[in-house]
Amino acid sequence: MEAKVAPAVSLGAEIVDRINALAAISEMPDNITRIFLTPEHRAAAELIMGWMRDAGMAAHLDAIGNVCGRYEGERPGLPCLMLGSHYDTVRDAGRWDGPLGIITAIACVGDLHRRGKKLPFALEVTGFADEEGVRFASTLLGSRAIAGTFDESALGGKDKTGIRMYEAMRAFGLDPDHVGAAARAPSELLGYVELHIEQGPVLEAKKLPVGVVTAIAGATRLAVELRGMAGHAGTVPMALRRDALAGAAECIVAIEEFCATDRDGLVGTVGYINAMPGATNVIPGMVSFTIDIRSPRDSYRKLAVADIVRQIEEIVKRRHLTLEINVTHENRTVPCAPWLQKQVAEAVKAEGYRVFELPSGAGHDGMAMIDIADVAMLFVRCRGGISHHPDEHVDLTDAEAGARVLLRLIEDFKAKG
Amino acid sequence: MEAKVAPAVSLGAEIVDRINALAAISEMPDNITRIFLTPEHRAAAELIMGWMRDAGMAAHLDAIGNVCGRYEGERPGLPCLMLGSHYDTVRDAGRWDGPLGIITAIACVGDLHRRGKKLPFALEVTGFADEEGVRFASTLLGSRAIAGTFDESALGGKDKTGIRMYEAMRAFGLDPDHVGAAARAPSELLGYVELHIEQGPVLEAKKLPVGVVTAIAGATRLAVELRGMAGHAGTVPMALRRDALAGAAECIVAIEEFCATDRDGLVGTVGYINAMPGATNVIPGMVSFTIDIRSPRDSYRKLAVADIVRQIEEIVKRRHLTLEINVTHENRTVPCAPWLQKQVAEAVKAEGYRVFELPSGAGHDGMAMIDIADVAMLFVRCRGGISHHPDEHVDLTDAEAGARVLLRLIEDFKAKG
Repeated sequence: MEAKVAPAVSLGAEIVDRINALAAISEMPDNITRIFLTPEHRAAAELIMGWMRDAGMAAHLDAIGNVCGRYEGERPGLPCLMLGSHYDTVRDAGRWDGPLGIITAIACVGDLHRRGKKLPFALEVTGFADEEGVRFASTLLGSRAIAGTFDESALGGKDKTGIRMYEAMRAFGLDPDHVGAAARAPSELLGYVELHIEQGPVLEAKKLPVGVVTAIAGATRLAVELRGMAGHAGTVPMALRRDALAGAAECIVAIEEFCATDRDGLVGTVGYINAMPGATNVIPGMVSFTIDIRSPRDSYRKLAVADIVRQIEEIVKRRHLTLEINVTHENRTVPCAPWLQKQVAEAVKAEGYRVFELPSGAGHDGMAMIDIADVAMLFVRCRGGISHHPDEHVDLTDAEAGARVLLRLIEDFKAKG
Repeated sequence: MEAKVAPAVSLGAEIVDRINALAAISEMPDNITRIFLTPEHRAAAELIMGWMRDAGMAAHLDAIGNVCGRYEGERPGLPCLMLGSHYDTVRDAGRWDGPLGIITAIACVGDLHRRGKKLPFALEVTGFADEEGVRFASTLLGSRAIAGTFDESALGGKDKTGIRMYEAMRAFGLDPDHVGAAARAPSELLGYVELHIEQGPVLEAKKLPVGVVTAIAGATRLAVELRGMAGHAGTVPMALRRDALAGAAECIVAIEEFCATDRDGLVGTVGYINAMPGATNVIPGMVSFTIDIRSPRDSYRKLAVADIVRQIEEIVKRRHLTLEINVTHENRTVPCAPWLQKQVAEAVKAEGYRVFELPSGAGHDGMAMIDIADVAMLFVRCRGGISHHPDEHVDLTDAEAGARVLLRLIEDFKAKG
């Protein structure tokens, strides 16, 4: 379904220009790599703050390196509706993942500013400093600092060149002894709304430019190790084998089948596998692989993990293999606040699009922001569902659609009663 | 079944001593690594030639580095029954794979020599210089040189440090311009018999110290590459995935099932797999894996390969993946000569063991020797079927049993009528 109403102003072209301008700030000349606390990261922050000021906002860098812009409401000091996303990237990234949410929010504020429109609440736009967690072994550093849940022990973490986060912050011009100053009080925020590319193919399959997020799916990651008996590929009859890779293959097929028959958004992925010794003519004696299970409902995910582990145990037992299986990562589902999600849906509808709800399988800063504010998200369609890749792409018309929905949401926003 | 006849002399203790002496000659102090044309290889050759001379044989190194011992028959210059195996090893090898066949043959000749016994034919014992093919990308170099099928272009091949085989031969003291001098005429050989450890678990499962080999199984190796679509492990619903690893897993399960239901010694192995990009949270977009298919009957193997390829094609089509599949290696089955195999079986029976016939799934020098001589093989039980590993082990009593069968075969040997 396409828009029924012509836009009052065209924000899409400005958004695409700025996406491209930000994409040019990279560690590498031929790809996009913008890592936490690097000179590129700093240059990107300056560029974003300039745009914020052009849009009538006060802008500053907070204690962790988040870019913070504030557009006062009808009178100074009102609680704010916070918008935002992150401005760090993965290595060899796409240009839309993160920046689209920041740049679109600034474009909306700029539109209000040009019209001289003030609202009965403040607007803040946050460019989170580190969502991807590429440099140090920890994600959501920026939003955690704002939510007051930043773990100070992370400052001791080192990047792969041996630089500690503590020193990297000093080099960036920040004071690592006062990260706590970035924390905001829940009373300052009316809610947190993030616009982000979907990073999946669902909106494209549904032929919709935008989607309303219901929850950020919780995830469990498992590390599995199967041990059998290595042997010569020619000399061990099939009946005498304890082939760890054949066992792992049966597990992978079972995981896929289990998730495919689910109707509630459960997804399961085996992304990594290693067979040892890994020679053409040797039966693998040991295989390690990972499992990533996500669901927008924690109870479903936990049941699914238990069922999958049980199936693996059965396969392993039948094949006389041994099993080691460990949970390496677990995070709970972050549901979008119904009252706020409803306003997002109303804005989508008001702009002439069909309201389509979907969970976010990927993690976002809302996972940290939930600790101080109700959270909602608006997804924008991306081509082929491709993300974390140079081919990541959003059509200008979809960027425009996202901006119009966000602007409508802002203008119609009613704080929770 | 155990031996019914007490051995005339005990050869097992001497064999085990010499196995251990040869195992001490290694590139590494803490494991066994004896690679073609290295100083260790040379030292091993000298040690073996000394044992040959002690056993009453003339011994020399031939043009490719094979150790050649000759025990004349009732008169000089008679055609010979050739015995042997290889004295090179894989890296971090066991001590029995190869050396057992050489050392046992020398022990048998030594026994005849001590008794002053001459036969109506000569005996030759060959220690083949390179069966494993670890150093240069080519196996069976020693036996091919003797069979006159050595490919001179192999001399240009380089090892991983960049040394060409040509230069390595010169450094070893050989003349690479005259490898052809190693070739033997078919008329000089009455047959080739190799004693070797089974390298598999069948004799152990059958509780037999020795087995009569029916054929060296032919093999086909395939390289498979499946391509789907990489994607975020959280954002792509199961129904929209084109997961290359899930597809590969289904193929691996199908290969195993196909081979397991076969009743004629077909074996199929996937020993290597790589999933790209290989991250926990990314659906694999590309997977490569290998398939190794072996059967003692070439026609069966070819049908099996065709059936397996067809199954893979069906899986790939149903999953909307793309497939590249290539044969990387193929060698035909080498059947043991019925007349010679029969004499091996008679020797087994004469020594009091049940005659049990089995194919060799592993390759051996007989694969090259078949071009100039009829071939037979005797397998000796090894513990757990383990080979190409430091844990490779043969019991002294089984080494003794192998020697007694080989000695009986030699003494009762009748040339093909």
